Amino acid sequence: MLYIIGLGLGDERDITMRGLEAVKSCEKVYMEAYTSLLSFGLDSHGLSNLEKLYGKSITLADREMVEEKAHHILEEARHSHVAFLVVGDPFGATTHTDLVVRAKKMGIHVQIVHNASVLNAIGFCGLQLYRYGQTVSIPFFTDSWRPDSFYEKIHSNRTMGLHTLCLLDICVKEPTLESLARGRKTYEPPRYMTINTAIEQLLEVVQEHQQPAYTEDTQCVGFARLGSDDQTIVAGTMRQLQMVDFGAPLHCLVITGNTHPLEEEMLEFYRCRT
Amino acid sequence: MLYIIGLGLGDERDITMRGLEAVKSCEKVYMEAYTSLLSFGLDSHGLSNLEKLYGKSITLADREMVEEKAHHILEEARHSHVAFLVVGDPFGATTHTDLVVRAKKMGIHVQIVHNASVLNAIGFCGLQLYRYGQTVSIPFFTDSWRPDSFYEKIHSNRTMGLHTLCLLDICVKEPTLESLARGRKTYEPPRYMTINTAIEQLLEVVQEHQQPAYTEDTQCVGFARLGSDDQTIVAGTMRQLQMVDFGAPLHCLVITGNTHPLEEEMLEFYRCRT
Repeated sequence: MLYIIGLGLGDERDITMRGLEAVKSCEKVYMEAYTSLLSFGLDSHGLSNLEKLYGKSITLADREMVEEKAHHILEEARHSHVAFLVVGDPFGATTHTDLVVRAKKMGIHVQIVHNASVLNAIGFCGLQLYRYGQTVSIPFFTDSWRPDSFYEKIHSNRTMGLHTLCLLDICVKEPTLESLARGRKTYEPPRYMTINTAIEQLLEVVQEHQQPAYTEDTQCVGFARLGSDDQTIVAGTMRQLQMVDFGAPLHCLVITGNTHPLEEEMLEFYRCRT
Repeated sequence: MLYIIGLGLGDERDITMRGLEAVKSCEKVYMEAYTSLLSFGLDSHGLSNLEKLYGKSITLADREMVEEKAHHILEEARHSHVAFLVVGDPFGATTHTDLVVRAKKMGIHVQIVHNASVLNAIGFCGLQLYRYGQTVSIPFFTDSWRPDSFYEKIHSNRTMGLHTLCLLDICVKEPTLESLARGRKTYEPPRYMTINTAIEQLLEVVQEHQQPAYTEDTQCVGFARLGSDDQTIVAGTMRQLQMVDFGAPLHCLVITGNTHPLEEEMLEFYRCRT
């Protein structure tokens, strides 16, 4: 049996009772360490909190390990109970779908334990979840790589008056260019895109378009550490939010569409005062 | 302090540890009884399971009570810890935003405990959550009231190749027409729209349009009792799903947009075999 268990967004107390029961029944516990571990407030201390709570040791599984050793994990799941822990909800990231497909093809029973994800926790700011269009991802620009496919999606959403959730890039355990050239892997330090960088890139991209989908006066909502005890939510124009220090990662950004009076009333509580 | 606590989608074991801690610290516990209580498997027995788990008695609050007595609930929260339990995540339904706005205006501290909602749990079927457009609601048609604003939204989503989550109508504690006329309230029995009815209405509406947004051959995914132990997921055309008996409520329906190979691979596991 393979359990894929969502841990929610805050800390170890955000697991559900169903999830905790499942972890406790497992002989082996893996935890994904490549999407948004940091939002979960995990360090060596945080990890031992989890281990203490579960009464189990946890094997951190980075992207490489999940991709290369999936077969090994699945073989274990064929003969015993294996838990794969995921920050947020199990179906935020593609790789878990891939793991489920492989398990099912091997005839392994898969149980999913759902939890909150960024996709619903952003409801906190008062913008109605059914008034969002397609979610976009904003990748780190480099000198030579500036993919901007997010722009057209934001444009469509705003044309229909819909809000847009922008997920911001996370680079964890990226091999350095130098190491790739030498064929010996060393890794860049992890990088998490800030709201400030995201807005900078958004405003850079919009300049190339005749009928801008948004401007620096467009109302947005910035979220940092959503779901944790010290989460920060600020509503303001792109220009205003660019001046805000949101602190530690993870960050995400919502570009508003048309807002209803009740949505406006909620946003007032988070309005930027600068 | 007002805690608004998501209970998730399955049963009493889907509360998070953070949520359980919060409920246990409260002097008074309300539970919303007007959106999707039934999906939670609650009857008099289920309710006492919750009460047993929490060690507290729970006051069921229907829509009328929340609207009429919100002030009373909030006055209690001013002086003590009050929990308001919500099936799924606290921000699925508008009314909770309203409660938060009122609380904040009264200077009452509000804490939200997130949980899974239908909006992310549908990820189970393998369709990627970031490839969904706007969510739509399909209301029960009557002889004289056939609102079809969902149609244009589905049309936009499909034009962009996006999937559409259709939330299906729930009528709980609706006053009978007769009782409204007499000014004395009696209530209709609760009704929950099935996937079969939803598809019937969808196909009825599409006939009025020249360039149909979908046909009876459009691929869909039907979900019943999502997140509970006996959930049912079937993928197939509208025509196929119309023949499936999905059993007890709640139901919801996804109309697919363009699908990726990995999405197709997952849907295969749920494919209708008729």
